[in-house]
Amino acid sequence: MKSPIPDYLTRVLENARPFDAGEPACYIDVLAKADTTRMAVALATVDGSVYSVGDDNIEFSMQSISKPFVYALAIQDQGLAKVLEKVGVEPSGDAFNRLSLEAGTNRPMNPMINAGAVATHALVNSPDGTVEGRVNRILDMMSRLAGRQLHVDEEVYEAEFKDANRNMGLAYMLKAAGMITCDPQEAVKGYVKQCSVNVNVRDLAMMAATLANGGVHPVSGERIIPQDSVRQVLSVLTTCGMYNSSGDWISNVGIPAKSGVSGGIIGALPGQLGLAVFSPRLDERGNSVRGVAMCKQLSHDMGFHMMDVSQIGRATVRSWTATIAGGTKQSKGCQQEIAIFELRGAVRFSGAERLTRAIIKEIRPPSEKRDGTDVHPHFCAVLFSFRNTYSVNDVARRLIHENIRRLASTTNVVVVDPNNVLKMSEEPETGPNPVHVVKTEAEARNYIGGIGCQVVSRGDTL
Amino acid sequence: MKSPIPDYLTRVLENARPFDAGEPACYIDVLAKADTTRMAVALATVDGSVYSVGDDNIEFSMQSISKPFVYALAIQDQGLAKVLEKVGVEPSGDAFNRLSLEAGTNRPMNPMINAGAVATHALVNSPDGTVEGRVNRILDMMSRLAGRQLHVDEEVYEAEFKDANRNMGLAYMLKAAGMITCDPQEAVKGYVKQCSVNVNVRDLAMMAATLANGGVHPVSGERIIPQDSVRQVLSVLTTCGMYNSSGDWISNVGIPAKSGVSGGIIGALPGQLGLAVFSPRLDERGNSVRGVAMCKQLSHDMGFHMMDVSQIGRATVRSWTATIAGGTKQSKGCQQEIAIFELRGAVRFSGAERLTRAIIKEIRPPSEKRDGTDVHPHFCAVLFSFRNTYSVNDVARRLIHENIRRLASTTNVVVVDPNNVLKMSEEPETGPNPVHVVKTEAEARNYIGGIGCQVVSRGDTL
Amino acid sequence: MKSPIPDYLTRVLENARPFDAGEPACYIDVLAKADTTRMAVALATVDGSVYSVGDDNIEFSMQSISKPFVYALAIQDQGLAKVLEKVGVEPSGDAFNRLSLEAGTNRPMNPMINAGAVATHALVNSPDGTVEGRVNRILDMMSRLAGRQLHVDEEVYEAEFKDANRNMGLAYMLKAAGMITCDPQEAVKGYVKQCSVNVNVRDLAMMAATLANGGVHPVSGERIIPQDSVRQVLSVLTTCGMYNSSGDWISNVGIPAKSGVSGGIIGALPGQLGLAVFSPRLDERGNSVRGVAMCKQLSHDMGFHMMDVSQIGRATVRSWTATIAGGTKQSKGCQQEIAIFELRGAVRFSGAERLTRAIIKEIRPPSEKRDGTDVHPHFCAVLFSFRNTYSVNDVARRLIHENIRRLASTTNVVVVDPNNVLKMSEEPETGPNPVHVVKTEAEARNYIGGIGCQVVSRGDTL
Amino acid sequence: MKSPIPDYLTRVLENARPFDAGEPACYIDVLAKADTTRMAVALATVDGSVYSVGDDNIEFSMQSISKPFVYALAIQDQGLAKVLEKVGVEPSGDAFNRLSLEAGTNRPMNPMINAGAVATHALVNSPDGTVEGRVNRILDMMSRLAGRQLHVDEEVYEAEFKDANRNMGLAYMLKAAGMITCDPQEAVKGYVKQCSVNVNVRDLAMMAATLANGGVHPVSGERIIPQDSVRQVLSVLTTCGMYNSSGDWISNVGIPAKSGVSGGIIGALPGQLGLAVFSPRLDERGNSVRGVAMCKQLSHDMGFHMMDVSQIGRATVRSWTATIAGGTKQSKGCQQEIAIFELRGAVRFSGAERLTRAIIKEIRPPSEKRDGTDVHPHFCAVLFSFRNTYSVNDVARRLIHENIRRLASTTNVVVVDPNNVLKMSEEPETGPNPVHVVKTEAEARNYIGGIGCQVVSRGDTL
Repeated sequence: MKSPIPDYLTRVLENARPFDAGEPACYIDVLAKADTTRMAVALATVDGSVYSVGDDNIEFSMQSISKPFVYALAIQDQGLAKVLEKVGVEPSGDAFNRLSLEAGTNRPMNPMINAGAVATHALVNSPDGTVEGRVNRILDMMSRLAGRQLHVDEEVYEAEFKDANRNMGLAYMLKAAGMITCDPQEAVKGYVKQCSVNVNVRDLAMMAATLANGGVHPVSGERIIPQDSVRQVLSVLTTCGMYNSSGDWISNVGIPAKSGVSGGIIGALPGQLGLAVFSPRLDERGNSVRGVAMCKQLSHDMGFHMMDVSQIGRATVRSWTATIAGGTKQSKGCQQEIAIFELRGAVRFSGAERLTRAIIKEIRPPSEKRDGTDVHPHFCAVLFSFRNTYSVNDVARRLIHENIRRLASTTNVVVVDPNNVLKMSEEPETGPNPVHVVKTEAEARNYIGGIGCQVVSRGDTL
Repeated sequence: MKSPIPDYLTRVLENARPFDAGEPACYIDVLAKADTTRMAVALATVDGSVYSVGDDNIEFSMQSISKPFVYALAIQDQGLAKVLEKVGVEPSGDAFNRLSLEAGTNRPMNPMINAGAVATHALVNSPDGTVEGRVNRILDMMSRLAGRQLHVDEEVYEAEFKDANRNMGLAYMLKAAGMITCDPQEAVKGYVKQCSVNVNVRDLAMMAATLANGGVHPVSGERIIPQDSVRQVLSVLTTCGMYNSSGDWISNVGIPAKSGVSGGIIGALPGQLGLAVFSPRLDERGNSVRGVAMCKQLSHDMGFHMMDVSQIGRATVRSWTATIAGGTKQSKGCQQEIAIFELRGAVRFSGAERLTRAIIKEIRPPSEKRDGTDVHPHFCAVLFSFRNTYSVNDVARRLIHENIRRLASTTNVVVVDPNNVLKMSEEPETGPNPVHVVKTEAEARNYIGGIGCQVVSRGDTL
Repeated sequence: MKSPIPDYLTRVLENARPFDAGEPACYIDVLAKADTTRMAVALATVDGSVYSVGDDNIEFSMQSISKPFVYALAIQDQGLAKVLEKVGVEPSGDAFNRLSLEAGTNRPMNPMINAGAVATHALVNSPDGTVEGRVNRILDMMSRLAGRQLHVDEEVYEAEFKDANRNMGLAYMLKAAGMITCDPQEAVKGYVKQCSVNVNVRDLAMMAATLANGGVHPVSGERIIPQDSVRQVLSVLTTCGMYNSSGDWISNVGIPAKSGVSGGIIGALPGQLGLAVFSPRLDERGNSVRGVAMCKQLSHDMGFHMMDVSQIGRATVRSWTATIAGGTKQSKGCQQEIAIFELRGAVRFSGAERLTRAIIKEIRPPSEKRDGTDVHPHFCAVLFSFRNTYSVNDVARRLIHENIRRLASTTNVVVVDPNNVLKMSEEPETGPNPVHVVKTEAEARNYIGGIGCQVVSRGDTL
Repeated sequence: MKSPIPDYLTRVLENARPFDAGEPACYIDVLAKADTTRMAVALATVDGSVYSVGDDNIEFSMQSISKPFVYALAIQDQGLAKVLEKVGVEPSGDAFNRLSLEAGTNRPMNPMINAGAVATHALVNSPDGTVEGRVNRILDMMSRLAGRQLHVDEEVYEAEFKDANRNMGLAYMLKAAGMITCDPQEAVKGYVKQCSVNVNVRDLAMMAATLANGGVHPVSGERIIPQDSVRQVLSVLTTCGMYNSSGDWISNVGIPAKSGVSGGIIGALPGQLGLAVFSPRLDERGNSVRGVAMCKQLSHDMGFHMMDVSQIGRATVRSWTATIAGGTKQSKGCQQEIAIFELRGAVRFSGAERLTRAIIKEIRPPSEKRDGTDVHPHFCAVLFSFRNTYSVNDVARRLIHENIRRLASTTNVVVVDPNNVLKMSEEPETGPNPVHVVKTEAEARNYIGGIGCQVVSRGDTL
């Protein structure tokens, strides 16, 4: 069978082709003479598949798309605190090439405007490092992200550096403001090199997918960007990634994204995928006209909008009781029943909270006051099944552990956790009634039998 | 058993108590004399549980927290397009009480600064409506969100209106700029009334939970805010909710949020929960000092950061083949095997893409060129199990349908979908090999038997 | 004989007539429907002549031209220090209807932008006064300036007040910033009334001439504006009078000026005259197109530019010695000569300095060191003639007195001052050799004869 | 006799000495280590006298005081129009080191902020010139202004250039904006050299006096700056010379002025004198604390405020009639009288206008309608005396000529103009009654006798 995904991407691409407004970036010849018929789109999933159509092997310079990755590198090299001393995180409301220093701190408003990006570049390696050192480090990271060796386009670099007056102006201003310590010329030289790294849409999609995958490369499995940096980068892209149309973008497209004047745009959908589009004609804000059109269609068709609550599934809880036969010393006073709780799906706080409520509701006699203070004695055991729980996040896990701990103080608890989503072994709990963690429902049955009881009803899931 | 959640919230609250910097809002007496020892925190889940500790029944005026809800109402009453003509969506970089009209359009930059909020208020009902009409409509919506009848605090209203010079100034400017059409005095009167609606943290948590739940009230199940408006509101909160510290907030807390000068803050975590905190002392940006501290701890402890990729579970795909026995006319040429695909979890694009890849990999002879053009004849049938798929979003559903359609052109397809996550019945597909949708694996076995085959191995999931 | 001045003004007016760009102020109907064929120009001298041509009896509302006069009134009523607390004096670089509050002080940048003008209006009479009180006081002053009773154009007032949203916005902002204490509605009401006072160009020329005349009305001789206020008003007009083209205006026209949206412009040339022009079509900055053209031609033709050094005449000094005959006890040791100094023209510091140098050069023997320490004994007397000195300013007078005082310590000094430009009688100096002040040269000759000498040469000026 | 002027200056200096607030400019060491006890003040008159007290031979770098002179040079080299394309003339409201590019044109707002000064510097000589060429040209002009060879302080230059990051930033921004065409590094290098020229207060006073003298050096008599450039420079100093306190300065001091961070300030009082003060401690705006105090006292004591109308003397007109005896053919119909007009003082438009009025009043029979159409026949001649008229500006001269021309059409006109203030010979008028211009009253008497009449009364001035 042939995958429908490339067909879909082709449709997206062809739908955007008629948009022929805009011009390539005019400020340097080498960009201005770009072939405006070129178009490409690529998707990379967090587990390493890449789909692409159009001119997907055409290379172009990264330009501003390099900014989020170099920001991540700066955080890695200097620590977030030190980076924040030199570059802020607030949207500026100004155009990308404005100085926009923050009143009071003198910091460039954020790392996505040029001033902030130059200051960020200067933080790679050590503040006293060389241009070569910084560029090599950046090129190495970009190459690992792309999964192949990338190169600086020297023609683009030469042309841009020759005409980098505005960035040079920003760099000297930053130097004057104490926001960079190296030579401003060197900072701009390195920054322009960083912008001149050549990529194609497949490279960019993989880079974005690494962000979407929390910093771990989808194919190599290498952690290239620390988790915390990814969070910081994606946060900044959310509010500042599309310059002074960031609010519009987040409302309409809803994906953390970054564009560059070569005509590329990347987007990173946390936990799902990275996307990249390319087409040289730019709108008046410097964003690829067809690129924006493709991103909007992808977001709309594929439900990518971060704030689209409708897409979010919930973990579900089922609970019931089962009658048991027999009984031993341990089950003295046990009123012949066990309570069973099953949790299905991807469990975050709200799923664990649902489980908590279910427990409180079940493990309490109707006659009691509804203060939830104690486990009622008539259950011989409480059994949890996590067979269909396919992920549990930290807070949910802590909350479930706490529930189990509280129950275990008065009754027997059996946990069926074949995939070890609860990581119970890591934190063995001992108490008056130790918790028994088993892999299968058969083992659970055996254990309950071991305490002198036998499940006699509703056995299908036990 | 007693729920651990209130205990946790109490810890969060007590951890924040020592923060005694800041002062209550000083600009009106009735706020300035607030009891600064008051503190409260509440959580409401999207399925209607509310947890709260501290002074959770103390009422205070909503102030700016009213803005996102009235924005939703304006969108509902006028349509998004018309609202966008009058109020933008870009972060302004300015303080909340600045005029910040957008160059060119004259629109206030966004609905969360005061100018934008006044313009937004004026769009409720019809532009020609009365103050009473607007306030009643807003109060009605707020009450439905809170789940109880709310009231305007007339003392607060009187005091604020008397001293509303700055807002009055903004309103006249908006009138001059053509951004409001009603009498500026009336606009401010209504806006101040909207700000003077009294709530407690439990009310606010439920309001936020309604946003988190896509606009449907967690308890009543009523759709109070249309889905699209929720997306718009949450997007705007993401970039503009915390004024000129929105970038900082989104980096550090990562939850769409809104604060008010009475000392309240709400946060809405899409698909999960709403939260609300309260403490009157404000920092220099007008945010509750202890409120911010509580939000930061909640976000950190509970993994609430939107960009925290680590929390996101993935749907999983299993696939295998089963040998069958027997065979009829229909299964002629069938080489005694069926292919089985099981998809587990909450399925979005990436899950469906994984399934697609699995199909392509299985349904193809090793000898063929890897172009995925055709289903290999040696499978008598392809069976999909969605028994453990607990949600499928639109794009995933479309992709799965497309896969099934393609397979069905050359082989038999059986779909086990007990929860109807694929909504197959809605779009019956007919073709050379109609797709058989069944509720249980037993039915699937029957069907396969019906085509003259019998599954002889790996039967546990069939 | 017929005066050439009206002929000249007619030429100026006709030269400007072909400029038909621009439109009347569009923001209120009553201005928008102005007859754009109307044109007028008027000059008023500081001694009360008025020349005017064109539609010089057509009335129009003063609009912003009222600002400098009301500023003068505010200074008079509150004192400059208190006015400066509420309104600054710096050019704003912004358009006239911007808020432009100064960082730190919250003051409107200057009294010529609308915000500053509203704040200024509110300072007339007392801050607690009524609209009627303020308007009556302003109308009274304007009428005295015009030399006839002026009236508020109620149609203009009603129309502008109805549409005064922007000014109302500014007023509420000013109230919020503590820059006005009265009700903002009342401040705007009064301000709009002040703007609606009707005048013709002859009225305006006389108003401007009063400024040019240091605050004294050229015809009535009444001091309407205190001298210090005039200086302040003219200073502010110099830097802020023509809004954000003040720098251009001062370079090109070089006259403190103010324009209004009805199409009027006034200019005040200190010590010389006031001018006024009128034509309703405005350029994009709100200045009368033909009005500006007329002002430019007047300034160019008539050498009105304040910085045009070429126009400034200098006082001249002549000095010589005269032989005398005879001699008495008093003239013992006197070597038969007197020194004579004549000062001609309008004397300011530089003229008095020239006289000082002449004295030092003459009254010193060539053999002495040139340290100017003493009067040489061989002059029997020093005679000053101020017969042709037609004005002496304060600093010059003080310097001349000091010279006379020093000379009188060692020799006889006679001063011929028929017009009392030195005001010697006011400050009688006594010393070893009292100074003799006389009206005519004949008296001087008599006096010198009285000390036993007789002038025998160069007598023509004695 | 000893001149009182140095004594006065000493008083001014000592009055300012107690002001010990502020610090020397801290941004470069060589300025920061300035001797803060140094103080000096100097005055130079437009006819070449220089008075100075204090540390008047101490040299310091000109810094921003160089700006107005280099602006004059740029105008001379490129023409005003071309300079205005690159540098505006509006006050910016911003601090001196802000970029402040004008919206739309990209020009720096004015030549007195650093950005404008760098752009101005780059216009000296030709835009393609060398640093050396520009600096030599500037140094040559500065030296001619000072009246001695000046030098660049290389230590200051090296120190400032090393730390010129902000100016370098401005220069690159200007390059990017197309406002300079040369290499930004070269522009800054030259600009810093220009700022590093060493002067003392006597040099500065002479430079300022040259501006006050319309561009002609008071001592050498050389025209160093064209008249029009002087007007432009003084206009710009008026609105922009003291940065963002220009409005305050013009209100309080009222002299076009410029300050520099070395602690110097110059002021130029058109037609009168130049002043210069020096003291290294600066206030927060970068102006010399004691320097400002000295300027304020000088302005106050000496009546230097440009807008101080009280100081301005007026030309006066006297007119009378004289009976004549005799009569000839020419005087047939002459009713035995002549009209005599005497004009005294410095005559500008208003003086000439007064004369015009006097003529119209006299030369008209009471019975005639007051339309001023004709000269009445009963005067045999009209005689004008300009013996005591010490200057006449262009417009006044044109108006007097026009009066004479009109009179001469119907009667005899005799003009006594010993100093040729009317420049009548340059434009000989012929008509039915040629105008007779004579040097003395005696000649006038002769001429009148020649037409057959003899003056018999009021002869003293004839």
